[in-house]
Amino acid sequence: MTRFDVIAVGNAIVDVIASVEPDFLVAHNIVPDAMTLIDEERAHALYAALPPAREISGGSAANSMAGLASLGGAAAFIGKVRNDQLGGIFAHDLTAAGVAYHTPPLLDGPATARSLIVVTPDGHRSMNTFLGASVLFSKADLDPQQIAAAKILYLEGYLFDRDPAKEAFYSAAKMARAADRRVALTLSDHFCVERHKAAFLDLVASHVDILFANEREITALYDVDNVETAADIVAKHGLIAAITRSEKGALIVQGDQRIVIVAEPVVEVRDTTGAGDLFAAGFLFGLARDVGLARAGHLGALAAAECIGHYGARPETSLRDLAERRFR
Amino acid sequence: MTRFDVIAVGNAIVDVIASVEPDFLVAHNIVPDAMTLIDEERAHALYAALPPAREISGGSAANSMAGLASLGGAAAFIGKVRNDQLGGIFAHDLTAAGVAYHTPPLLDGPATARSLIVVTPDGHRSMNTFLGASVLFSKADLDPQQIAAAKILYLEGYLFDRDPAKEAFYSAAKMARAADRRVALTLSDHFCVERHKAAFLDLVASHVDILFANEREITALYDVDNVETAADIVAKHGLIAAITRSEKGALIVQGDQRIVIVAEPVVEVRDTTGAGDLFAAGFLFGLARDVGLARAGHLGALAAAECIGHYGARPETSLRDLAERRFR
Repeated sequence: MTRFDVIAVGNAIVDVIASVEPDFLVAHNIVPDAMTLIDEERAHALYAALPPAREISGGSAANSMAGLASLGGAAAFIGKVRNDQLGGIFAHDLTAAGVAYHTPPLLDGPATARSLIVVTPDGHRSMNTFLGASVLFSKADLDPQQIAAAKILYLEGYLFDRDPAKEAFYSAAKMARAADRRVALTLSDHFCVERHKAAFLDLVASHVDILFANEREITALYDVDNVETAADIVAKHGLIAAITRSEKGALIVQGDQRIVIVAEPVVEVRDTTGAGDLFAAGFLFGLARDVGLARAGHLGALAAAECIGHYGARPETSLRDLAERRFR
Repeated sequence: MTRFDVIAVGNAIVDVIASVEPDFLVAHNIVPDAMTLIDEERAHALYAALPPAREISGGSAANSMAGLASLGGAAAFIGKVRNDQLGGIFAHDLTAAGVAYHTPPLLDGPATARSLIVVTPDGHRSMNTFLGASVLFSKADLDPQQIAAAKILYLEGYLFDRDPAKEAFYSAAKMARAADRRVALTLSDHFCVERHKAAFLDLVASHVDILFANEREITALYDVDNVETAADIVAKHGLIAAITRSEKGALIVQGDQRIVIVAEPVVEVRDTTGAGDLFAAGFLFGLARDVGLARAGHLGALAAAECIGHYGARPETSLRDLAERRFR
């Protein structure tokens, strides 16, 4: 018996979100539209340069689990904070969103992770992440019974950036497979793919059933120059793939099937942070509830559209209500 | 010579803002539309019950100074945080907003103040404030030269809730008067007025030149049943008064003058937190720059309208640009 639709392993991060003009990115050497890892010194220097900000809990897979819970799904999350104020905020917000979250916080060592996110007036976001405590979780934080209790294990590619977390990540995948559960992975970021290409290829071939990627990430993974070729490769490996394409929607791939998902209309694009995370939320929820690939893709598009309309990467309205109104 | 248009003394608070349905207020004994003081135990219990939230720097007079800086004014703030993560966020946001802020943080003792603010779908907010470190500032944190360097000293009535802060507050008023500067006071909240009525009456009569209040606050202060009578009393004392009236705008009072300020239109009321603070920002800026009472009132209405359209009590766009477009 399963208690959860999805359990996710990912970085536990609080987002620090500030609106800036495009020249701020140039002045502060920020890579546009990417997630760049920064050390604590750079985090302090960049924060000092940042305009007034708002703090909203984030973390890619954690956002997805908050979205899944908002859709009415049963979600759990594994990820590490420190026992500091930001760690308390992260734990509160995830728990209040209805996600089971019991990873004990670190009692000393680096502070809770934060991502300094600058959003330009076109809604594009550039993330500068100090990983802090979030990479210091280990196999000891994984409960095989909890992982076996979820239909799908969802892994965040960003975790590949630190070895101890990467090991725990492999362990989690093995625990899920041992319990005959499906394993989903998001490639997270194309720079992340470039940093860890060989490891990702190995993981995808050996442990993954469902792959999330955007166009740049999946073409980078397979070293090809177009999405169609990448889709053919991933289909040949027997995976389900959801390839997100920003305002063009998404392409769902399985075997010979290619399902085009049109993006949901957004009244005002304010902040695209979390759009991919929320697409994953809807798609995973659909898969866990066996609604079919097309409906799962539509749920993903709906969830992504909600979060683009406001600052922060987690839903501000009930996605379940939105979905009921949209699909009744 | 003055270096600042306004220097403010107030509580240094980080807001924790969550959207709730009206029945949440009933279930958790929250006084609607008011600021209620809570202790640390209640703060923890209420936070645990709160939906996912966003953290945005607040504090009534601090919000006003952020607004004044956004209008192009020179602002300074005196208020106390602890050296914890929320304290760092408060100091960053205020400094990044362009406000001079140099009060040293507490190194131990209570944590940085936070206000748990629940916002209902009609935009109304109810504040539950744990004052923490913010009341532990004292005369030692006041620099007479800095206070003398501002045209107007602005005092936040909420500080009357703790005696040591209240004493520092009187000291600041005396420093300003000794330097021949004007003193402004906001009554903050009608429950706050009820708690400290005698002290407020004494302060207003002896140390205040400019008074901010809403209708409930000023009628409570003078124990009268209508705003017109209250306006006559405050005018007789020789004060300038700005009486805010929510969606009805504001009434400016001086001597025989009664200037009605119509509220600026707001496209979508999302969160009224900070509306009064931002009205004060615009009005104080106008007074400091001698633009006349009517224009000062219009600046207040413009600043208040901006902050009602989004979560959080500080401007998200340049109020100077808004004002230039509106009044050119």
